[in-house]
Amino acid sequence: MPTPYDAMWEKLNLDLDAHAGLLSVLGKFYGDIYLTQQGRLKGMEYLDFVLSEVHGLRIQELQEAKAQGKKVIGTFCVFVPEELVLAADGIQVGLCAGAEAGKGEAEKILPRNTCALIKSFVGFKLSRLCPYIESSDLIVGETTCDGKKKAYEIFSDYAPVYVMEIPQMKNACDRDLWKAELLRFKEKIEEITGNAITAPKLREAIRKVNDRRRVLQRLNRLRANVPTPISGRDVLLINQISFYDDPDRFTAKIGELCDELESRIKAGEGIVPKQTPRLMLSGCPMAVPNWKLPYVIESSGAVIVGEESCIGTRNIRDLVSERAETLEEMLDAIADRYLRIDCACFTPNTERLDHISEMAKELNVDGVIHFALSFCQPYTMEAFKVEKILKEAGVPMLSIETDYSMEDVEQLKTRVEAFVEMVRK
Amino acid sequence: MPTPYDAMWEKLNLDLDAHAGLLSVLGKFYGDIYLTQQGRLKGMEYLDFVLSEVHGLRIQELQEAKAQGKKVIGTFCVFVPEELVLAADGIQVGLCAGAEAGKGEAEKILPRNTCALIKSFVGFKLSRLCPYIESSDLIVGETTCDGKKKAYEIFSDYAPVYVMEIPQMKNACDRDLWKAELLRFKEKIEEITGNAITAPKLREAIRKVNDRRRVLQRLNRLRANVPTPISGRDVLLINQISFYDDPDRFTAKIGELCDELESRIKAGEGIVPKQTPRLMLSGCPMAVPNWKLPYVIESSGAVIVGEESCIGTRNIRDLVSERAETLEEMLDAIADRYLRIDCACFTPNTERLDHISEMAKELNVDGVIHFALSFCQPYTMEAFKVEKILKEAGVPMLSIETDYSMEDVEQLKTRVEAFVEMVRK
Ligand code: SF4
Ligand code: SF4
Ligand code: SF4
Ligand code: SF4
Repeated sequence: MPTPYDAMWEKLNLDLDAHAGLLSVLGKFYGDIYLTQQGRLKGMEYLDFVLSEVHGLRIQELQEAKAQGKKVIGTFCVFVPEELVLAADGIQVGLCAGAEAGKGEAEKILPRNTCALIKSFVGFKLSRLCPYIESSDLIVGETTCDGKKKAYEIFSDYAPVYVMEIPQMKNACDRDLWKAELLRFKEKIEEITGNAITAPKLREAIRKVNDRRRVLQRLNRLRANVPTPISGRDVLLINQISFYDDPDRFTAKIGELCDELESRIKAGEGIVPKQTPRLMLSGCPMAVPNWKLPYVIESSGAVIVGEESCIGTRNIRDLVSERAETLEEMLDAIADRYLRIDCACFTPNTERLDHISEMAKELNVDGVIHFALSFCQPYTMEAFKVEKILKEAGVPMLSIETDYSMEDVEQLKTRVEAFVEMVRK
Repeated sequence: MPTPYDAMWEKLNLDLDAHAGLLSVLGKFYGDIYLTQQGRLKGMEYLDFVLSEVHGLRIQELQEAKAQGKKVIGTFCVFVPEELVLAADGIQVGLCAGAEAGKGEAEKILPRNTCALIKSFVGFKLSRLCPYIESSDLIVGETTCDGKKKAYEIFSDYAPVYVMEIPQMKNACDRDLWKAELLRFKEKIEEITGNAITAPKLREAIRKVNDRRRVLQRLNRLRANVPTPISGRDVLLINQISFYDDPDRFTAKIGELCDELESRIKAGEGIVPKQTPRLMLSGCPMAVPNWKLPYVIESSGAVIVGEESCIGTRNIRDLVSERAETLEEMLDAIADRYLRIDCACFTPNTERLDHISEMAKELNVDGVIHFALSFCQPYTMEAFKVEKILKEAGVPMLSIETDYSMEDVEQLKTRVEAFVEMVRK
């Protein structure tokens, strides 16, 4: 079926047939998982729309911006400071890497024992399926996990990659290294965009990104209500879309959705009955369209009320201080804020354990489902620690390792259903 | 069978029965792989002896040293600067982690998708099988790969662990971080030994460790001869033993062995016929008693003439400069030397690719066997790069991923034999 975007996709050198196939699978998948939900919020229509136009309208916007000289910066990790990109008039997009298409191609140049996210971004590139990758003037990698760190070396044969070093501890020398890396990144962004990052520009960018974090914090506070007024799937989708939508538009739209949530709460309405088991997800980020586990959970009689992940709370918990006045102070504020991220790539990473306990308590959860992509060593290892502290706190945990394939759906369903029965009060 | 060491092992809280079983398997394995070799050097008798006393005499020496107040520092990686430990009158031992015993225990607290080396050290501890771990006053980990980095967090519930941060790149800020980490380690070692590290002491330690590197360099130069005068298995064993034997004694003994090699070479004698295919091993370190692949290779009609690994050339290639005069200069020389290590944990790690090409040329190899432990992301990923540069250099490469189990020996034999036939001129 021809679409108004075919010419654009062709220009981006996508494999048009394979891409059409991908969109149709995605549309069907989305319909099954999202559009079948009952009592959905009116405000979700905007997200349905954005998702339906994920490779269309948004890419067109990016292309128009590029035609005006703006640069698009693609990322795979919440460590890349969007504030700097925005301050240089660039556009930052999260490259989602949540689908299996392209896996076969990826496995030709990557070990099979590589996590699905990495296979996904390499596969999307090799199979010419992702208009975001193709629109990116620079793709910023980071030395977080071994898998990504080494995969970027291979990926850089195919795409314009720049790698930021993320330290592995949080001592004074790590803060110094991170600050030096921020400055190196600032220069790179200034060079690629041709725009100097000034104090007023950076102040404005800090506010913009903080505003998006603030509205997502508000959303999280509202959903914490009992009964929760929104499904976990929908909140996950909102978080996923936050990585590629225009920040101002997104913030405004989610603000409206929060207003709607408030009236629901006032009316005592929930998306599920009050006694529905409340679960929290914790672990690896779930990139678009990795909705498998949330769907399995929410069709097993439970509701998800929190996501302790980078496509979730870990990305919005901390704001950049807005008290900084000079450029130097702002850069320090950015360095400090990002170094608070409690990714499992750090050692030790006790902050994450504390955050998980706090969230479990604040959200009144009946249990935690720890999600790790297979072969993800940081999160599969840390799961043992998470289980231990949750046990001490009396919160049951189910540890899931999976990938993007649909082969294990039935097996997951069995395990999740048993867990939900177990935690039901 | 009672041994003179039973009381010592009991005091070290080893599981005596399981330990006896381990030693007997090890002895049999060693006999099959080492003692069956033809035309072995007389100088190897010392190594046979050391190996046969690996849990006996050497542990007794360590215990005697400890009784005199010396401290034993256990390590898992060549990044831990032995110079500092020796300068504080400590003893550094490499904890080998090359056997499967204890795997079942390890898998209770580690993901199954963890490399064999990590499962091995955790398993040895949990199963109370390793007198070196039990003799260590401090075990020094490092943030090299994700697997070890996160496993140390778990391991530290069972043993006294200290973790050094190794940077992931080699820019100026990384050198600063690494220097800061060296100083932190120096303080730790001074604290645990109660001895200050002074310039004269450090100078002496630098010389001692360099001497060991120099004698191993000499060994490597001699074995490069065609026909090679020593088996690859024997050189691997020598490298393995260098990690726990007394440095001065070891250096003297290997010096004598090198003299013997020189006479062999003068007499035109080789350990194998001149036309035997010459292979180089490259990749993950092979810890004692991980001799599976070398044995498979050398019983398939080839001979190993180089080990591009940390239990091999990577650990002895670079000396610490002996020109430094002040303590500060020596610390800088140590920092510089260690930061030259070309571990796959760095990104990018092009130095390793250059070293591999050079070695393959200098050693006149007919092919390279790349060895990676399953689930080792740094080395399995880098194998793709290694294959690429070797292809460009016209050197065939076989990529092997395996662990410590004997299950795949037949399959490995088939693949290695086919490779050897392919490269035979
Ligand atoms: S989990 Fe870690 S590596 Fe992944 S996006 Fe988050 S911070 Fe980055
Ligand atoms: S899921 Fe784990 S292994 Fe995969 S990219 Fe993220 S941190 Fe790395
Ligand atoms: S391969 Fe890397 S992590 Fe392993 S011992 Fe060598 S330097 Fe250390
Ligand atoms: S073999 Fe690889 S995964 Fe295992 S400890 Fe060494 S570097 Fe880490």
